[in-house]
Amino acid sequence: MEPDLSAVDERLAEFEADGYLLDADGTDPNQQYLSGFDAPDPFVTLYAGETHLLFVRSLEFGRAKREARADTVERFVDFDYDRLREEHDRREAAARVRATFLREHDVEHVAVPPRFPTGTADALREQNIEVTVDHDDAIETARATKTAAEIDHIRTAQRANEAAMAAAEGLIRGAAVDDEGRLLAEGEVLTSELVREEIEVTLLRNGCALDETIVACGADAADPHDRGSGPLVADEPIIVDIFPQDKDSKYHADMTRTFLVGEPDETVEEWFELTDQARKAAIDAVEPGVTGAEVHDIVCDVYEDAGLPTLRSDGSAETGFIHSTGHGVGLAVHEQPSVSQRGGELEPGHIITIEPGLYDPAVGGVRIEDLLVVTDDGAENLTEYPVALTGE
Amino acid sequence: MEPDLSAVDERLAEFEADGYLLDADGTDPNQQYLSGFDAPDPFVTLYAGETHLLFVRSLEFGRAKREARADTVERFVDFDYDRLREEHDRREAAARVRATFLREHDVEHVAVPPRFPTGTADALREQNIEVTVDHDDAIETARATKTAAEIDHIRTAQRANEAAMAAAEGLIRGAAVDDEGRLLAEGEVLTSELVREEIEVTLLRNGCALDETIVACGADAADPHDRGSGPLVADEPIIVDIFPQDKDSKYHADMTRTFLVGEPDETVEEWFELTDQARKAAIDAVEPGVTGAEVHDIVCDVYEDAGLPTLRSDGSAETGFIHSTGHGVGLAVHEQPSVSQRGGELEPGHIITIEPGLYDPAVGGVRIEDLLVVTDDGAENLTEYPVALTGE
Repeated sequence: MEPDLSAVDERLAEFEADGYLLDADGTDPNQQYLSGFDAPDPFVTLYAGETHLLFVRSLEFGRAKREARADTVERFVDFDYDRLREEHDRREAAARVRATFLREHDVEHVAVPPRFPTGTADALREQNIEVTVDHDDAIETARATKTAAEIDHIRTAQRANEAAMAAAEGLIRGAAVDDEGRLLAEGEVLTSELVREEIEVTLLRNGCALDETIVACGADAADPHDRGSGPLVADEPIIVDIFPQDKDSKYHADMTRTFLVGEPDETVEEWFELTDQARKAAIDAVEPGVTGAEVHDIVCDVYEDAGLPTLRSDGSAETGFIHSTGHGVGLAVHEQPSVSQRGGELEPGHIITIEPGLYDPAVGGVRIEDLLVVTDDGAENLTEYPVALTGE
Repeated sequence: MEPDLSAVDERLAEFEADGYLLDADGTDPNQQYLSGFDAPDPFVTLYAGETHLLFVRSLEFGRAKREARADTVERFVDFDYDRLREEHDRREAAARVRATFLREHDVEHVAVPPRFPTGTADALREQNIEVTVDHDDAIETARATKTAAEIDHIRTAQRANEAAMAAAEGLIRGAAVDDEGRLLAEGEVLTSELVREEIEVTLLRNGCALDETIVACGADAADPHDRGSGPLVADEPIIVDIFPQDKDSKYHADMTRTFLVGEPDETVEEWFELTDQARKAAIDAVEPGVTGAEVHDIVCDVYEDAGLPTLRSDGSAETGFIHSTGHGVGLAVHEQPSVSQRGGELEPGHIITIEPGLYDPAVGGVRIEDLLVVTDDGAENLTEYPVALTGE
């Protein structure tokens, strides 16, 4: 996969910088994107038209030469590190190596993302390399538009996600209910933790790693960031939100469903129908040129028309629709573009979630989330999973 | 658990700084240690005798007040962010909030770890807050000495590790061998990937997440960082290195064993015996006041006395003992103290690995790794797992 780095080229021209510099390990999405390489220790990647990697130690050298998306791969020893180390402390020797590496690629001024390490930036500045922070993160901007290969990676992760959701739904829907209203699976009280374990094992069996998984019931579900804990109960909505990362490709998927065992009360039923209506209306609106803000407004309209609070109608609302409509998904589970009050224009190749939801500690929470790719004339829903509150 | 921050106090005095500042999400070990809080988005932690947390959004506020190890928890809105945002761009408004937060805690000069984000450091400097990079990372130094509670967390992770190792060993030892010498489990070719999956599922069932796991055979095993792939074969050593993280406590464990199905050749047998001898000799030497360098020397002595190369005898050796003897283990799987050529004095409460090993692409690799806690008068081996090359 050859990434389209024109957004990075434009930023370099704007800053009059000669190169874009990263210093991060292989878990950093920008580093994964620019270098195409995964290593447990931080390494340096320079983009200056061509891409150059620099490693402290030789350990990853051979593998990087084979696997990385790089024009050159170099090591500290290639820049006389051992001799420098005799004369200077480790920090000074490393700074000199990095400055020489940059100058050998004709770079005197680098742009760096906001979270570039201060230790490295200060050391480069001492070597008279100019370092400018790119607060708008041009590499993240480049990452927002996916190639066909990237879309396939996300599709693969989404299939694993659906297998895990089916495992969770099977456990929940198959549960009995005890005298206290708690769900039982094979005679044992079914907890958030047990369902989460089943989800995570299924993801592993399907080649995915896991960040966190949300299985939240009752009051837990009323806090959109609560992972959930303890027994799951009947007659209350259970939010299951799964966002796996494919172990090979490093790309994510993201999906939420809300399940209920027993009888939903009227409010929950209405919330679920409204949320599904908001989801469909938002999905119908997604096409190139429409802004994330416009899609978010459609969701707010549905809820506000039903008399429910949103952050648009009341910036300090603590119940109702209290988050944004969606976010980009890729090497990071949350990335550009934003489908929110400040969301900009959607473009073909953007991959976004649409995830309306309603929350109130007195009721619980309801959320439904699909994953979409913006196409040339609309959107394709990458989610192949039914939407149903109860099993009937 | 109250961490001992005297190393941080000393660094602040040395730098004449008023506070130590972090800006990182909950996956950062320093952030976990100082704040005792886990959140998916970056937040600011200030240590200035007392500990103060600052969140951009309100989402984590309630949970942080309940769970964090903090004297105060504050949010951007508590520092007039919305008004500032009307007059300034996001970056400038955030910088003013952070500077006001620091000044309200009487802080004008902060020390930060080397990987503190440049975007935040530059913005604070523009607000006339002095920012000094602490290249020796005093929080990592503080983390090296574990409390009884931390040792218990690591012990718990090590029990999960042993369950996973037993699952892997069961699969490997129980394998049949086909005509081509490949291991077979239930009629299927047993691969590194299959054993790894079994390990990771077992860890999940025992409350642990996983970073990476090494299951490497033959030439793969000769590269200490190769995770291994493809069929496992008979008569060759298989290195299994597992380093799980407990999902609740966030503490790690670390253990390596080497297994062989069939008949080891003479070299592998000799290597295994030497490596076990080196392991025992190193463990016997561990006690307070002994340096990591001295322990490393003991391992090098064993290997060099047998005529094998080490990085001590030949700095460019590519076969033999080509890594250090061990490292600290805690919130990070690799942390201080180092048991290597430059390793300093060991102290009670240090948790270290002892992991001698030998490598040669023509032979394969052998490594045995135990996890130890330094006690007042020696060391306790936290590893409860037999050491045996073959199953007999």
